[in-house]
Amino acid sequence: MDKRILLPLTLLPAFQSGNIQAADQPAKRPNIILFMVDDMGWEDTSLPFWTEKTHYNELYETPNMERIARQGVMFTQAYASSISSPSRCSLITGTNAARHRVTNWTLQKDKTTDRKDSLLDIPDWNYNGVSQVLGTNNTFVGTSFVQLLKNSGYHTIHCGKAHFGAIDTPGEDPHHWGFEVNIAGHAAGGLASYLGEENYGHTKDGRPTSLMSIPGLEKYWGTETFATEALTLEAIKALDKAKKYNQPFYLYMSHYAIHIPLNKDMRFYDKYKKKGMTDHEAAYATLIEGMDKSLGDLMDWLEKNGEADNTIIIFMSDNGGLASESGWRDGPLHTQNYPLLSGKGSLCEGGIREPMIVSWPGVAKPDTRCDKYLLIEDFYPTILEMAGVKDYQTVQPIDGVSFVPLITGTGDPSDGRCLYWNMPNNWGNDGPGINFNCAIRDGDWKLIYYYATGKKELFNIPADISEKNDLSGRHPEIVKRLSQKLGSYLRQVDAQRPSFKATGKSCPWPDER
Amino acid sequence: MDKRILLPLTLLPAFQSGNIQAADQPAKRPNIILFMVDDMGWEDTSLPFWTEKTHYNELYETPNMERIARQGVMFTQAYASSISSPSRCSLITGTNAARHRVTNWTLQKDKTTDRKDSLLDIPDWNYNGVSQVLGTNNTFVGTSFVQLLKNSGYHTIHCGKAHFGAIDTPGEDPHHWGFEVNIAGHAAGGLASYLGEENYGHTKDGRPTSLMSIPGLEKYWGTETFATEALTLEAIKALDKAKKYNQPFYLYMSHYAIHIPLNKDMRFYDKYKKKGMTDHEAAYATLIEGMDKSLGDLMDWLEKNGEADNTIIIFMSDNGGLASESGWRDGPLHTQNYPLLSGKGSLCEGGIREPMIVSWPGVAKPDTRCDKYLLIEDFYPTILEMAGVKDYQTVQPIDGVSFVPLITGTGDPSDGRCLYWNMPNNWGNDGPGINFNCAIRDGDWKLIYYYATGKKELFNIPADISEKNDLSGRHPEIVKRLSQKLGSYLRQVDAQRPSFKATGKSCPWPDER
Repeated sequence: MDKRILLPLTLLPAFQSGNIQAADQPAKRPNIILFMVDDMGWEDTSLPFWTEKTHYNELYETPNMERIARQGVMFTQAYASSISSPSRCSLITGTNAARHRVTNWTLQKDKTTDRKDSLLDIPDWNYNGVSQVLGTNNTFVGTSFVQLLKNSGYHTIHCGKAHFGAIDTPGEDPHHWGFEVNIAGHAAGGLASYLGEENYGHTKDGRPTSLMSIPGLEKYWGTETFATEALTLEAIKALDKAKKYNQPFYLYMSHYAIHIPLNKDMRFYDKYKKKGMTDHEAAYATLIEGMDKSLGDLMDWLEKNGEADNTIIIFMSDNGGLASESGWRDGPLHTQNYPLLSGKGSLCEGGIREPMIVSWPGVAKPDTRCDKYLLIEDFYPTILEMAGVKDYQTVQPIDGVSFVPLITGTGDPSDGRCLYWNMPNNWGNDGPGINFNCAIRDGDWKLIYYYATGKKELFNIPADISEKNDLSGRHPEIVKRLSQKLGSYLRQVDAQRPSFKATGKSCPWPDER
Repeated sequence: MDKRILLPLTLLPAFQSGNIQAADQPAKRPNIILFMVDDMGWEDTSLPFWTEKTHYNELYETPNMERIARQGVMFTQAYASSISSPSRCSLITGTNAARHRVTNWTLQKDKTTDRKDSLLDIPDWNYNGVSQVLGTNNTFVGTSFVQLLKNSGYHTIHCGKAHFGAIDTPGEDPHHWGFEVNIAGHAAGGLASYLGEENYGHTKDGRPTSLMSIPGLEKYWGTETFATEALTLEAIKALDKAKKYNQPFYLYMSHYAIHIPLNKDMRFYDKYKKKGMTDHEAAYATLIEGMDKSLGDLMDWLEKNGEADNTIIIFMSDNGGLASESGWRDGPLHTQNYPLLSGKGSLCEGGIREPMIVSWPGVAKPDTRCDKYLLIEDFYPTILEMAGVKDYQTVQPIDGVSFVPLITGTGDPSDGRCLYWNMPNNWGNDGPGINFNCAIRDGDWKLIYYYATGKKELFNIPADISEKNDLSGRHPEIVKRLSQKLGSYLRQVDAQRPSFKATGKSCPWPDER
């Protein structure tokens, strides 16, 4: 018998990756909760991420976001993609959307979700999402950081929206990505209904009424339990179980809230109506406060169970608030993320800047703000670093950069770094910064380039957060420099671009005109 | 950007293990079905594994075992442990039970299942089962071959009985072991009821009536669907889904059948009653035929879906048929595995010799028999070899030896190899070869050693399959040689042994008296 293999059990470098799942740790590793909200705008909270308190900050109530902000760091320039799938595929693979090419939202296998366009053809993007294995067309294959966490000894829990791969592709199921527990996650990026009374989108005999019917919450059918609450109750059960395992846990608390439909969470509705809010705005406010209560319930669980001091909580949204459709929110279109312009689907700040908070007891300085920028793919290396997982192997290159130094105050990874977005698709709605474009953020400057027209917009973001003043005419040299960087990056990561129907030719890269 | 990481995506050595899940394959890798039956005796089938047809071979009907045997190799000396947990823990970790120390059955955390003994104290065995991570007392930590399969690109499905770790330990859930799908598997090694009419052991309002209530089959509650059929229907749904993923699949079809209780599967009951069988024997026969139908249904699925030629099926049982309890079977105790002596819980052949068949189209010679011996932990390296997974890392040493050469006819891994069993526990029932013993098989010879008394039994198995003639008196030199090998092995793998209550001293190893 060969004892060489037995000995390393105790001698292994801590948290080594690979298929070795039993790596022990010399120090206690932190639990990590990534609390991800869907379609939540930058100011959809009573906690102002801007320098001033806005109208919506006054209306909405998120006491638990305020509570966690007092314990940690608010990030005021945290970015995601403008749509859910690109963001979530960047999250799970650590790659920029320009590289993974899941640049619009996914749902059904081999079916694109783009609106047809009269002028441009959309490239053959990865409408099947991301996958953990080769073998499926139109997917990007990547190693999941969750699998690496699991391999290193974490207990991994998924709760809520997954939206990694299209239906019937290997990426559709969180279990395939290394999650040991999956509560209610599947291919869909939205939900049929928040209402237990509507069985979250199932008929009485259990048939889904939509591809967006929420799976796995059968025990709450016919009750008054709002989906946000049902997910929270199930997450807490999973945490109760996790505590017995004597492993650090990773909980991806990925709410379907505050995505439409605007069901009313009656626990909070009357309060907002009494403030004089319209039905729409009051309903929207209840989605927000229900989500916030969930955050508080998890924080309460941590405190009651003695895990608060050893748990990192990261709060994030996947894209900006929906502002391009009438019928959901009040007020003029594209104003709901004020002071930011536009919303979901847009490369304007309203579509990509997210409310983000990190609480890390003993590490993050309480009640502080960080104005350095970061991007959704940065979560991948950050979370692995937080968990002490090092020297891991991935099949894909990792574009993300750990923002741990921003939390520990030991460095500034944003210094000299550009951020990139690419959206060669036609999401569907219209509005400022929406569809067929790409963008770069370089220091204070941001350039948006429109594939169809060649139009370039240049903004100084700190000076003009609402992107009112296009300075492209005044600073042609900056436009040129940013166009070159953006074009160079997109080519380097083999990004896609639309083509002109009339000629069949690809639209020029930003530095080609 | 660093492209070094991207390039290996296509250049990776095929099926490399580690966290790289996307390793592509130059040739199509086979699907693998491990069809595991619970508590099935060697002759609980119409397919005789002995040289003669037995009474029970005549009574029971297993046409699909006959069908698969015509396509592949019957292994007539396939061994497991004498109890379920030791076997299943050896299966998932590739280690001998003497090493992993899960030497009796597991269920509840920190509770042993042993019967008290007046003479001997039972060692502090791993009554919490096996675990994929460190951190839980009284578990053996191992890397699962299923995780390695998943890492290499297999879609991994668990259906039925798991029984790897005790309730509330990390090993309790098949998802934790690398299974992407889990149908009805949990900590328990038995079942409360096969009956849909009894909700498989749940009250009308969904509360389990026992720790052995089968989870996850809610949709069949209140119907006449026998558990074996429900599991098969769910497995086939999982295969339908697997086919869409364009990955090879590994299905662990792990039936709760034919474990007690002896519920009647009414699809088959009348037929057996008409043969004149007693209620007990007829009910037992229906458990067997229901299991056999499941095998046939899976084979049918493979044929209909064009996967039969690319799928390996391995048929196996986890220990011998239950023969030490009155009230379930007819006839004198310890005779139900005839020609083998004793049954479940015993180190006599009736407790450890299993019906095993391997069908591997294009590789295994159809309709053949192999009389070389092998042991349950051999499945670990065998299945990985079948899947082409090489150079894998595990935290535990692998005791198993691949039996692929026996299938391909390229070698004989049993040549010169000894097999070992260790049972320092008190299972509970009594009978030949049951409790507080250990054993070695060396060529034709088998020695059983009893810790309490020091008694040693020696049998020439091919000449005396029923272990009627103890030759220890006639061949003291063989007894000595086998005692030395057995004692040496047990010490080498740090096996456990009972101790005497009277003195507190450990029972001697077999070569110490």
